[in-house]
Amino acid sequence: MTDDTFAPGLENVIAAETRLSHVDGEAGELVISGFPVEELAANATYEETVFLLWNDRLPDADELDALRDDLAARRDLADEAYEVVRAAAEDGADAMDALRMGAASANLGREDESPEEAARTAVARFPTVVAAYWRTREGEAPLSPREDLSHAGNYLYMLTGEEPSDAEVRGLETYLNTVVDHGLNASTFTARTIASTRSDVVSAATGAVGALKGPLHGGAPGPVLDMLFEIEETGDPEAYLRERLASGERIMGFGHRVYRVRDPRAAVLSSAAERFYEADGDGEFFALAAEVEETATDLLAEYKPDRPLDTNVEFYTSLLLHGIGIPRDLFAATFGVSRVGGWTAHSLEQLEADRLIRPRGRYVGDADRTWTPLDER
Amino acid sequence: MTDDTFAPGLENVIAAETRLSHVDGEAGELVISGFPVEELAANATYEETVFLLWNDRLPDADELDALRDDLAARRDLADEAYEVVRAAAEDGADAMDALRMGAASANLGREDESPEEAARTAVARFPTVVAAYWRTREGEAPLSPREDLSHAGNYLYMLTGEEPSDAEVRGLETYLNTVVDHGLNASTFTARTIASTRSDVVSAATGAVGALKGPLHGGAPGPVLDMLFEIEETGDPEAYLRERLASGERIMGFGHRVYRVRDPRAAVLSSAAERFYEADGDGEFFALAAEVEETATDLLAEYKPDRPLDTNVEFYTSLLLHGIGIPRDLFAATFGVSRVGGWTAHSLEQLEADRLIRPRGRYVGDADRTWTPLDER
Repeated sequence: MTDDTFAPGLENVIAAETRLSHVDGEAGELVISGFPVEELAANATYEETVFLLWNDRLPDADELDALRDDLAARRDLADEAYEVVRAAAEDGADAMDALRMGAASANLGREDESPEEAARTAVARFPTVVAAYWRTREGEAPLSPREDLSHAGNYLYMLTGEEPSDAEVRGLETYLNTVVDHGLNASTFTARTIASTRSDVVSAATGAVGALKGPLHGGAPGPVLDMLFEIEETGDPEAYLRERLASGERIMGFGHRVYRVRDPRAAVLSSAAERFYEADGDGEFFALAAEVEETATDLLAEYKPDRPLDTNVEFYTSLLLHGIGIPRDLFAATFGVSRVGGWTAHSLEQLEADRLIRPRGRYVGDADRTWTPLDER
Repeated sequence: MTDDTFAPGLENVIAAETRLSHVDGEAGELVISGFPVEELAANATYEETVFLLWNDRLPDADELDALRDDLAARRDLADEAYEVVRAAAEDGADAMDALRMGAASANLGREDESPEEAARTAVARFPTVVAAYWRTREGEAPLSPREDLSHAGNYLYMLTGEEPSDAEVRGLETYLNTVVDHGLNASTFTARTIASTRSDVVSAATGAVGALKGPLHGGAPGPVLDMLFEIEETGDPEAYLRERLASGERIMGFGHRVYRVRDPRAAVLSSAAERFYEADGDGEFFALAAEVEETATDLLAEYKPDRPLDTNVEFYTSLLLHGIGIPRDLFAATFGVSRVGGWTAHSLEQLEADRLIRPRGRYVGDADRTWTPLDER
């Protein structure tokens, strides 16, 4: 076993081949199923994006209609799944706990579906779980999904009870497309490891929700919004940010582990946020965010001149999601509503590859302990 | 990025350091928290084993009492978790689907527990989930857990409604100890990957259930029992096994991916099965199994002389679990009832290490696709 590679964290280990996405951190490029993210995010509906991920090509009009209808017909949950999600909300569980519970039960009554069908069930039902959780938390009854609305439109409807505007739907759709897949991040890799045992797609997506829940996963933009609200209260972005930097605290919304240059998703979401706020949003809040961005960029160059810390995807996500009416406490779960498209596609790809993922551990514990009976301890 | 290691499957990659177990496949040795598996399995109660895994030492009498009481007090599920498991059973879902659903909801109402508490909740509640599923499938109401019984004893009680014999409890306990941890197998690695994002222990254990569900995970002894029953019907082990080998089929219960020599767990479970059947079991069935083992070993040496294919852990597991009254359809879930001890310990260890697990993918898809509007496809 002398030729084993010691790689805790697996940072430079290629654990799978994939046709689903390519992250080039040096060049600042993200390709999703062959398309630069800029090209896909602004053009596709979410239904087109998941078709693309699952089939490696765009659907024609008939195929897209069929997929929309099929997803819409799968949206409703089993009664017991609603009950679990309701109980979680009433207990004060956070949205990701509720999503894990709802995800695990997403195929209640449909356990024998093919992997492709299970992928559609998972994608169709994640928004229903999150919305049911939210309505309960707000003291309202969950709303039944509406089959006449698009995937993104129905999610917003189930949250608010109102039909969303075109700008809101387009804003959400752009977000969902932008973050749908991003190489072998921890949650996607979790889904693949589960699928690698020939397990099922719902199990894989449920495990992935658990990984996405962790604060080290990245992509959870809630803290950025918290910071923007705090700054709004103080009324003085520069003083707030200087104090934060002087006391060694991180400024939320800047820097990314993978990208050495600007994260390409940040540009997409920045334009989407700008477009949305111009058409439909709270202009004052957008202006504040723009000021924070400019000030933070200047101050980071001053305080940390040797580290390029560009505005990251969380910054614009928080702006965009807040604008279109997604509650801050659902930001991570809404990321899951998007990423389940990638998780299911990776699960299908791993099932196709049919290769067990099973690394080794290095034992660092004691050896040769001998048993001491209880009364001698 | 030229120095990346391409290692799909991660077979020779060390992904973490661990003090929990050491698998030496060349020497045929398994160490669990410092103890040779032979030493631990036959001596410890399951409560002692999980204390050992969580604390890296054996408990004294007071500590063991406290842990027993604490686990016993955590056994009951929230009503909604029972409902989900009941629905799964009534829908005909398999036990691992039900366990995933029950595991995901295991901390309903306890979402804010510390990692150490969540580990105890998960371990305490897995048997309740599996037993509730089974009782429902059998058309009976789930039984409330009994706090006066041990972890293993209460599991058998909740399945059957009867107080188990000492031999049954000791047999189950030996099994639970033997398979509680086994290096970074796919389910354990799943738990660690989830925990590596600083997520929670219940999420990690839920993901691990999903990985354990897959047939490539290994350790699911159901098919061995199916084979033994088939042989029992034919009444002629040698003819059955020769036919199977001649037609190129695998003989269930022989060979292991990791061990080049005999899996040390096989010896432990073989003795445990022998001890159990002598004290309490169906002697005829045990004699049949012994004959099958001897015949299969001879025939494998004849048909595959260059591959050592020893009787593996699944063979004796099926014998032992069947003997003590665990239904065949619960074998994989009962493996989960044991392994959740290891999964929780690995999750705690990974949380302590606080290192994100995030490998890379190699992109093999198209590049530079350009968007075609729907009406031009």
